[in-house]
Amino acid sequence: MKVIDKIRASQNDVVFSFEFFPPKTEEGVENLFEKMERMVAHNPTFCDITWGAGGSTADLTLEIANRMQNMVCVETMMHLTCTNMPVDKIDHALDTIKKNGIQNVLALRGDPPHGQDKFVQVKGGFSCALDLVKHMRSKYGDYFGITVAGYPEAHPDVIQSTGEATLESYKSDMAYLKKKVDAGADVIVTQLFYDTDIFLKFVNDCREIGITIPIVPGIMPINNYKGFIRMTGFCKTKIPAEVTDALESIKDNEEAVRAYGIHLGTEMCKKIMATGIKQLHLYTLNMEKSALAILTNLGLIEESKISRPLPWRRPTNVFRVKENVRPIFWANRPKSYISRTIGWEQYPNGRWGDSCNASYGAMADHQFMRPRSRDKKLNEEWAVPLKSIEDVYERFNLFCLGKLKSSPWSELDGLQPETKIINEQLGSINSKGFLTINSQPAVNGAKSDSLSVGWGGPGGYVYQKPYVEFFCSSQKLHALVEKCKAFTSLTYMAVDKKGSWVSNIGNSEVNAVTWGVFPSKEIIQPTVVDPSSFLVWKDEAFELWSKAWAQLYSEEDPSRKLVEEVQNSYFLVSLVDNDYINGDIFAVFKEILKKFSVHG
Amino acid sequence: MKVIDKIRASQNDVVFSFEFFPPKTEEGVENLFEKMERMVAHNPTFCDITWGAGGSTADLTLEIANRMQNMVCVETMMHLTCTNMPVDKIDHALDTIKKNGIQNVLALRGDPPHGQDKFVQVKGGFSCALDLVKHMRSKYGDYFGITVAGYPEAHPDVIQSTGEATLESYKSDMAYLKKKVDAGADVIVTQLFYDTDIFLKFVNDCREIGITIPIVPGIMPINNYKGFIRMTGFCKTKIPAEVTDALESIKDNEEAVRAYGIHLGTEMCKKIMATGIKQLHLYTLNMEKSALAILTNLGLIEESKISRPLPWRRPTNVFRVKENVRPIFWANRPKSYISRTIGWEQYPNGRWGDSCNASYGAMADHQFMRPRSRDKKLNEEWAVPLKSIEDVYERFNLFCLGKLKSSPWSELDGLQPETKIINEQLGSINSKGFLTINSQPAVNGAKSDSLSVGWGGPGGYVYQKPYVEFFCSSQKLHALVEKCKAFTSLTYMAVDKKGSWVSNIGNSEVNAVTWGVFPSKEIIQPTVVDPSSFLVWKDEAFELWSKAWAQLYSEEDPSRKLVEEVQNSYFLVSLVDNDYINGDIFAVFKEILKKFSVHG
Repeated sequence: MKVIDKIRASQNDVVFSFEFFPPKTEEGVENLFEKMERMVAHNPTFCDITWGAGGSTADLTLEIANRMQNMVCVETMMHLTCTNMPVDKIDHALDTIKKNGIQNVLALRGDPPHGQDKFVQVKGGFSCALDLVKHMRSKYGDYFGITVAGYPEAHPDVIQSTGEATLESYKSDMAYLKKKVDAGADVIVTQLFYDTDIFLKFVNDCREIGITIPIVPGIMPINNYKGFIRMTGFCKTKIPAEVTDALESIKDNEEAVRAYGIHLGTEMCKKIMATGIKQLHLYTLNMEKSALAILTNLGLIEESKISRPLPWRRPTNVFRVKENVRPIFWANRPKSYISRTIGWEQYPNGRWGDSCNASYGAMADHQFMRPRSRDKKLNEEWAVPLKSIEDVYERFNLFCLGKLKSSPWSELDGLQPETKIINEQLGSINSKGFLTINSQPAVNGAKSDSLSVGWGGPGGYVYQKPYVEFFCSSQKLHALVEKCKAFTSLTYMAVDKKGSWVSNIGNSEVNAVTWGVFPSKEIIQPTVVDPSSFLVWKDEAFELWSKAWAQLYSEEDPSRKLVEEVQNSYFLVSLVDNDYINGDIFAVFKEILKKFSVHG
Repeated sequence: MKVIDKIRASQNDVVFSFEFFPPKTEEGVENLFEKMERMVAHNPTFCDITWGAGGSTADLTLEIANRMQNMVCVETMMHLTCTNMPVDKIDHALDTIKKNGIQNVLALRGDPPHGQDKFVQVKGGFSCALDLVKHMRSKYGDYFGITVAGYPEAHPDVIQSTGEATLESYKSDMAYLKKKVDAGADVIVTQLFYDTDIFLKFVNDCREIGITIPIVPGIMPINNYKGFIRMTGFCKTKIPAEVTDALESIKDNEEAVRAYGIHLGTEMCKKIMATGIKQLHLYTLNMEKSALAILTNLGLIEESKISRPLPWRRPTNVFRVKENVRPIFWANRPKSYISRTIGWEQYPNGRWGDSCNASYGAMADHQFMRPRSRDKKLNEEWAVPLKSIEDVYERFNLFCLGKLKSSPWSELDGLQPETKIINEQLGSINSKGFLTINSQPAVNGAKSDSLSVGWGGPGGYVYQKPYVEFFCSSQKLHALVEKCKAFTSLTYMAVDKKGSWVSNIGNSEVNAVTWGVFPSKEIIQPTVVDPSSFLVWKDEAFELWSKAWAQLYSEEDPSRKLVEEVQNSYFLVSLVDNDYINGDIFAVFKEILKKFSVHG
């Protein structure tokens, strides 16, 4: 979706966005994505990623933008500059992001490449952002949302040694901005500034020459004194005397500088918001705390009240914005789900049509790759010596009790909030050999803004059928099958690694297990259980025993043998209690366990 | 859907069907449809309609079959005979029913035309049912479900004066039946019989020569002694001595004959069902009581437990079997809804796609035509002198209280069962000038087999958002709009005859107001409220003031003027309480009425 449309849809709410740059190392990239995950949970309107000076990070920027849009699922704006970019390179970049379902570009002239003083037009390239905007509109029509930069203090190139641009330069800069808007830009984001009055005057001046599109203030929280001096020097940013004074006495105290930065950012935003401006853009410098602290101070976010539009994070890719139904199986591996369904481009009525016809992508090695930090955690928590099957049970039990933060079956850190509602019951069945990898508690008409189970915003009611998905031995499965004859509200599917199938439902039955009822809306049912997807998921679920767990041990380690034995002999079971009002999905386990000794 | 597929889907349930013939008069046809409505409520697998001897009722049969399939919404099987039917007439009949979404035909040779003794092949026609079956399969492929007749006592043509066919004739008759099956018939319905043993032997004989398709016994309850003698004489049916004996003593007592007929039919069916046969076909002779009594005796139906697969009767037309969403507005005028949407042939995911694009057929005069019996009732109950607006209110009030059986805004007799839950509250607002024409009570997770509000079979839970649709004066509407600011869970749309629009929802918002949650299924939401359909409905709703009410009075009658005044000045209001859990849709009316005196 275009940023301008998101801004329009937000109506009277104040919205915010975060800017990041491509880190230099692979580890830096993984760190950035971990931060981004947490920041995106606060629902920014968009995030943008810069294009390295002179196109130095072009490929990395394209890759990060793709991951942002499609894996993190945040509306992504990619910067694109003219520096060192002949038009075929520009088009390659635009074609790539278009193919990846990204719709937003920040069109810039760009700084000179490192080691040069002045911007030089490359052969076959453009001389300025205006050319780039014109080119995008002429070649790509209406597809892209185009943002351009606004310079409240005029472009640094025309700022003189006095620290100011001449009035003439300022006016010609404004006229140039107007041209960019007339050429098709639909949002302006400003250069950083610390003198709010200059920004507000700039907005007025823009309005006076007929610029009507949103002008979003770019706010860079001061994090560190030296960095602040370097950055404002480079951008020739005017620093109000009171800021200089305030920093002078604390400049060696990093903590105090950061606290002041948060205070200053908050005050600047308050002043801006008081004039009725409803968008804020935060230059994060890839740091999380100051940006979030400012938004918290402004009352725009609340750590304990992260709202979920759907139980899973809604995709932003233009091809799948209408998606609103997913199988439950990948609930803890959403990135794997996206990568296995990346080719899907049609969501008639928001779903994958007939689930039997859904064609999932094959499993690929990259689906089992984890960021180093997660690998380390898994190694610490799961690569422990396993002397008996009970030691295997114990890993699952500890994870359910929140005592481990990682699981081979989850991309997430620790438990989902709703899991905590039932984690003792889960722990208890795990310690007896029902090794759960996915679950949800019963929800019978909870308010849709409930912190643990709510989604979809206020005013509605949400529901869940209780669900448990687990590995267990064939003996335990058969006991379950037997008991289910009396527990008539339970439906199950079970399958082992080789594909042996046991179930009490039809092959084409699709069971909605999460749904919501909202004012003036149709029923939304974002999560379902269906046999076709389960059969696709089961290969992945069994594969994780080796790719995520067994491989942590050396080849000859008896612990590894034990893990592999479980992988080869256990069934994966999907169990739904259809009576979400009066049922108790754990009751059947109590019945079964009466039959089994601890070693059963 | 083909009858054979419905029989297969019924699995272990005993299913039944009803046969009717085309009545001779228009009034007879209307009477038949009234009976049929009641009988179809018991969910027969199908109903069939005969083809008059020699094609004498061809056009009427085609028309009745169309109404059965598309208005009564019962799976319809049309008889088709070869008598006097050249192949182009046959094809015309088949093309007609195919176009009308009918899939089932009973293929017969047919009796000789009236006044002739022997069947004579017409020029360019067929000589026997086998030819007809072959023709249907060769020209229409797999489209039709084809039923053929089986003669447990051999075809009457070969029954000799002894009252029996020779063994040779019987065998050649069986061989002919086998040929009809091999040519593509998929169900056999038998000629009537009263000696159950003969039927059971016939089934065995069929199985022995390799006929494997269902053989459905044709049961004709004895209703009347003379009719019974005539019919069995015509069909040369063997009558067991005990039946002759039993009837002999009571033949002049019509009541006793009918009671015996019910008893005999019940015993015959019991004996047949005891052998594992799970289909019964009842020759009703267009009479309702005996057939229903037999089914009641067998425990196959229960007057107080009529189950609804959906809140509205599911269409059987092959083009709309997937339909599962409808606007609530036509809830009391389902036939009008069907006739205005008859051209719709696509129901992606069971609904009419994007409601804004749904194109409804124009209103036609026939949508306002009523059977004579209903017209009479309306005249009695609504064409009363109206001295003041309160007399108008009183009609609506009396209807809501169940004291009137008819309403200009309803095709149905009296109130729907669920309306009785709220009829006093409805009566109270009607008597104050909120003239309701549609409503539903709040339902918060009632069991899906609840008698008043349930649908969809057992094991699920059903829900409804409370709904009231009414006419009221513009003053009352404005009071409602004002009060709705405090009653935040209410959404409304209001429009007057000229189209003035007042609403607090968006133009494309579709509100699910009835939905159900079932084991191993997606959420079903059969009823919605949406602005686009409401705007189509409103013309019909306003038109009914004149076409169904005002026209009952003479042109100059002041009562007529009063009705027309209301029609021209009132608003039609659709009001939903989105809080089906804690809301009270009637609370807002109490608040409004505080402001109004009786004459407000």
